[in-house]
Amino acid sequence: MSGRGAAAQARLRRRTAEVLELSRPDDRLGRMVDLGLAALIFFSVVDVILESIPRLERAYWDLFVAVEAVVVAIFTLEYALRLWSAPELERHAGCPPWRARLRHALTPLLLIDLVAILPFYLGYLLGLDLRFLRVVRLLRLLKLTRYSAAGRVLLDVIYAERRVFFAAFSLLFTALILASGGIYYLEREAQPEAFGSIPAAMYWAIVTLTTVGYGDVTPVTPGGKFFAAVVGAIGVALVALPSAILASGFVESLHRRRARYRSLVDAAAADGVITEEERRRLEAARAELELPETEDLEALAKLEGLAEPRPLRCPHCGAALHESAPPDGPMQ
Amino acid sequence: MSGRGAAAQARLRRRTAEVLELSRPDDRLGRMVDLGLAALIFFSVVDVILESIPRLERAYWDLFVAVEAVVVAIFTLEYALRLWSAPELERHAGCPPWRARLRHALTPLLLIDLVAILPFYLGYLLGLDLRFLRVVRLLRLLKLTRYSAAGRVLLDVIYAERRVFFAAFSLLFTALILASGGIYYLEREAQPEAFGSIPAAMYWAIVTLTTVGYGDVTPVTPGGKFFAAVVGAIGVALVALPSAILASGFVESLHRRRARYRSLVDAAAADGVITEEERRRLEAARAELELPETEDLEALAKLEGLAEPRPLRCPHCGAALHESAPPDGPMQ
Amino acid sequence: MSGRGAAAQARLRRRTAEVLELSRPDDRLGRMVDLGLAALIFFSVVDVILESIPRLERAYWDLFVAVEAVVVAIFTLEYALRLWSAPELERHAGCPPWRARLRHALTPLLLIDLVAILPFYLGYLLGLDLRFLRVVRLLRLLKLTRYSAAGRVLLDVIYAERRVFFAAFSLLFTALILASGGIYYLEREAQPEAFGSIPAAMYWAIVTLTTVGYGDVTPVTPGGKFFAAVVGAIGVALVALPSAILASGFVESLHRRRARYRSLVDAAAADGVITEEERRRLEAARAELELPETEDLEALAKLEGLAEPRPLRCPHCGAALHESAPPDGPMQ
Amino acid sequence: MSGRGAAAQARLRRRTAEVLELSRPDDRLGRMVDLGLAALIFFSVVDVILESIPRLERAYWDLFVAVEAVVVAIFTLEYALRLWSAPELERHAGCPPWRARLRHALTPLLLIDLVAILPFYLGYLLGLDLRFLRVVRLLRLLKLTRYSAAGRVLLDVIYAERRVFFAAFSLLFTALILASGGIYYLEREAQPEAFGSIPAAMYWAIVTLTTVGYGDVTPVTPGGKFFAAVVGAIGVALVALPSAILASGFVESLHRRRARYRSLVDAAAADGVITEEERRRLEAARAELELPETEDLEALAKLEGLAEPRPLRCPHCGAALHESAPPDGPMQ
Repeated sequence: MSGRGAAAQARLRRRTAEVLELSRPDDRLGRMVDLGLAALIFFSVVDVILESIPRLERAYWDLFVAVEAVVVAIFTLEYALRLWSAPELERHAGCPPWRARLRHALTPLLLIDLVAILPFYLGYLLGLDLRFLRVVRLLRLLKLTRYSAAGRVLLDVIYAERRVFFAAFSLLFTALILASGGIYYLEREAQPEAFGSIPAAMYWAIVTLTTVGYGDVTPVTPGGKFFAAVVGAIGVALVALPSAILASGFVESLHRRRARYRSLVDAAAADGVITEEERRRLEAARAELELPETEDLEALAKLEGLAEPRPLRCPHCGAALHESAPPDGPMQ
Repeated sequence: MSGRGAAAQARLRRRTAEVLELSRPDDRLGRMVDLGLAALIFFSVVDVILESIPRLERAYWDLFVAVEAVVVAIFTLEYALRLWSAPELERHAGCPPWRARLRHALTPLLLIDLVAILPFYLGYLLGLDLRFLRVVRLLRLLKLTRYSAAGRVLLDVIYAERRVFFAAFSLLFTALILASGGIYYLEREAQPEAFGSIPAAMYWAIVTLTTVGYGDVTPVTPGGKFFAAVVGAIGVALVALPSAILASGFVESLHRRRARYRSLVDAAAADGVITEEERRRLEAARAELELPETEDLEALAKLEGLAEPRPLRCPHCGAALHESAPPDGPMQ
Repeated sequence: MSGRGAAAQARLRRRTAEVLELSRPDDRLGRMVDLGLAALIFFSVVDVILESIPRLERAYWDLFVAVEAVVVAIFTLEYALRLWSAPELERHAGCPPWRARLRHALTPLLLIDLVAILPFYLGYLLGLDLRFLRVVRLLRLLKLTRYSAAGRVLLDVIYAERRVFFAAFSLLFTALILASGGIYYLEREAQPEAFGSIPAAMYWAIVTLTTVGYGDVTPVTPGGKFFAAVVGAIGVALVALPSAILASGFVESLHRRRARYRSLVDAAAADGVITEEERRRLEAARAELELPETEDLEALAKLEGLAEPRPLRCPHCGAALHESAPPDGPMQ
Repeated sequence: MSGRGAAAQARLRRRTAEVLELSRPDDRLGRMVDLGLAALIFFSVVDVILESIPRLERAYWDLFVAVEAVVVAIFTLEYALRLWSAPELERHAGCPPWRARLRHALTPLLLIDLVAILPFYLGYLLGLDLRFLRVVRLLRLLKLTRYSAAGRVLLDVIYAERRVFFAAFSLLFTALILASGGIYYLEREAQPEAFGSIPAAMYWAIVTLTTVGYGDVTPVTPGGKFFAAVVGAIGVALVALPSAILASGFVESLHRRRARYRSLVDAAAADGVITEEERRRLEAARAELELPETEDLEALAKLEGLAEPRPLRCPHCGAALHESAPPDGPMQ
């Protein structure tokens, strides 16, 4: 390959990386590719769902097979291009190409991409059950996580609180075991088919603790009914735990993201002026941090404060105290 | 039309806008019109509900038709007057009258007003199903949103958190698809009528994930029961998400509204005195921002602080530091 | 009556007010009366519950009648004494005795006391249904609210958030009306007995929106099932609202109560020393405000800071900045 | 016993206390013992669950008996060693050995340890029902609480909020009593077997208030259905209470733990430098306080700030104000 060819290839590879991975707001091709792939994921999942309807499956079998082949082909191409262009990504800078690709292949997003196509090939190789493969194909929906900033915030909160979350689930698990044991002891003789062993009783226990309460298995003895009432009340308190942990995590995450945004504003305002360029970057950072628009208005109010001080001042010397504080007033 | 007639008409139009749109607390006619319209909305919805009872429908058919005609007539007049007086509203100032009216007609509140009357006319024109129209008439209830300050705060919070909310619902949607696929695979053969296709299985999945748990469709195979228990536990965690997002949004909204109120108090106190007039305006602003009465007491405490400094002072120079901070004590 | 008799009566009346209404921690008789009355309330409710069991009702009818008579006699005496001693209460100071008693009788706690005894007398007068009276007697449980500081905090939070709460219930109500109308339209023909009118459909709608989901009435048409899934998902989001409002209210209430406690500590420390007496009063105030014990430890740390400044200081002049702030560190 | 023997025994006792009770991260034997005991707890509970399956119970009865004997032997040894080495623990320093052991035996963790072995011995002594003992053996799961830092945080929050929590459960209890009484009055005649007495009606009431909603007992009269809808709506609001209380408790706990961590960082940085040793200790304290890793990054940022002040400064004198505040930016 001539040097010119290599340079052209390098340029192509960089452009591929830009389009597929960076998703800059001003890259029109990148945004169109993102949109197209997201639409394809959605379409493919709808296709799997429709295919599961026996009447449609019989009538359009050939069409479903063809659509699946095309979808897998496109996703395979996407996966190959992502791997090929991985060495261009800044976070893998300095690695030899093969290591950059390996590291990239092991990131969660790329593993999801693999799960989206692998069953197709494995199905042919191993002759797996068609209906099992169908369910696995639904996992493609997870590919959509790539495109949601708010979803990332949500997953960040869940990840940050994972340990307390795990403790809450341990508590639920302990309650589940004890509830199963208790109802097994109380209802075993009256309803041997539903409560004849602790594992069997667990179905009732989880249905009650989560407050789903189907009612297909319910206690019939007075002792069992009383115990069920206690388990239901405990269930209500336990169900409150994830909600409480997440609520505290969201409050926390909001503060953290806002602090990051504020420090960016401070840095931009350090020289006394905020240029149009800086303002655009701040706006992009705000959107990236999933902060509401009002955050920006407050920042603007503050920027105007640079030129003309706010009426709220330090009562001693007349200088504006805590320039960044007033917008948060109540927390001051 | 003579100049005097035009002036009278302009005055009438301005008064109409004041009465219908501004709802100032000291405008007695405006408050009575508000109350009357709210009562009419309520009455009209009760009327629709009663009309749906077959016995009453047969007995009082003529009465229901007459009431509906009167209600629609009043709502149509209200809608027309709102459009006619739109150019008087400050937010449409500077527009030519037809543009002001068009812009006003496209606001959410006016669109709801249209939905409240349009079905009546369309029903006659297109010969729509009477029972369908009846349900659409229930949407009139949405007209009540105009009259609730607390409701607006609530909707603001939901709107501010809409992106994370959407992400949470995407997660619920993903769980729904995967749960439907899984139970379809596990229960398809045992219960072909309820789990014979993924769309059919979705009914069970959403009933379980939302913890409603009717129990009309439940798993019967051991695998299906285990899967149902897992889906129930995931449901509990997912159900916690909206609650957590909203809780963080409410904490946030409260801080923001209070900050706005505090800055109003600061502005009023900038000259060292708060007149009775200023105090009344602050009180109105507090109510508008849906802040509790205690907020006002704190503001008063602070105002008294203007005359006589609080015992808590800066330890260096003796001057009161952070005048606006002490009321929030715990956050200081 | 001689002057000595009047003075003795006044003393007795003052003592009665102290015992019944003030509940000072160092008043042993007052605490014993509180305990006795609380026990009697509890006992009386258990009595009503046991009386409702047909077997016990037949066997011990005379006993139940006698117990009820004694209980009502004691509660009537309590009510009378509360009214009689009302003029001694500080909050009614300056009123003539009859006005003090009237104002006292109209407070929520005294109204509950009246509800606890009135049905007994009314039942004899009006010959009301015995079983209805039995249920009304259960309302005596509300008398217990008088004895719970934490309960008062909880009710305060609910009261402070009442307007947003009302807005949330309005939203639930709107969803209820629209869900009832929708399911009425979709299932009316398939299940005329359960969905034959909008009021009938409301039972299903509320059971679904609250995620109770009995399953005694469920949709059977495909459209109805889809609609039920949508209503279930909306229900999950709506159910999150009260929880979110209350969570924000609790955070708020904690800050407010802590601010009050801090300002008491500041006042006590204004003269540079905190005496043992002041410390005891602060401790009592902390308990009354339902603040955790750690709050007190922080206050002690701060008090020690009065004698010996903390290591964290202002970097400019070496003086301790924001003496009250460090304990809240993260909120600073 | 010779002095050397006594010294060796004292050394052994100290080492035993270290291994069993202190669980220092650098004590390899201690961590292995912890892991082994946790695994044994888990294994023992699984054993109980499997034993409850009639088929397995019949087939492997001897094996189950043997496993149980071994498990109890190990747990008994563990319990004895914990008691024996108790005098070495710092918190019991100064007590005579027998008092140290008694105090240790009465701590919650040791009581749980006792519950894990006692039923085995009591069962032999008193000839208790085998199936009852089986359920009690499940309580061994509680021994796992010893090994979870996040679980301790969770229990701390629940403990700190116990009084408001108790008030919330009192409210639920009041609603339960009133709901039972109401439905008893309304449905007693239509369904005497399910609603024939208030205690019987309580089963329905708790199933409805907790939103479990089995549907095995549902109202059939119009009045009962209306009442059930009201109870369901109240249930939704009550179910929100524990969640709200816990959420506020978690926010609070996070602030408290972070404040403690910040004060440790401040103490370490008081001399202007943070050594490697101090950094390791801070890291350990952060993990112990269950604070997220980001907390540490912020501390590092702050430590760097010791050398080079941040751009955000006090506008009066140019010195960096509130060195500890900026990381919390939004709360400033």
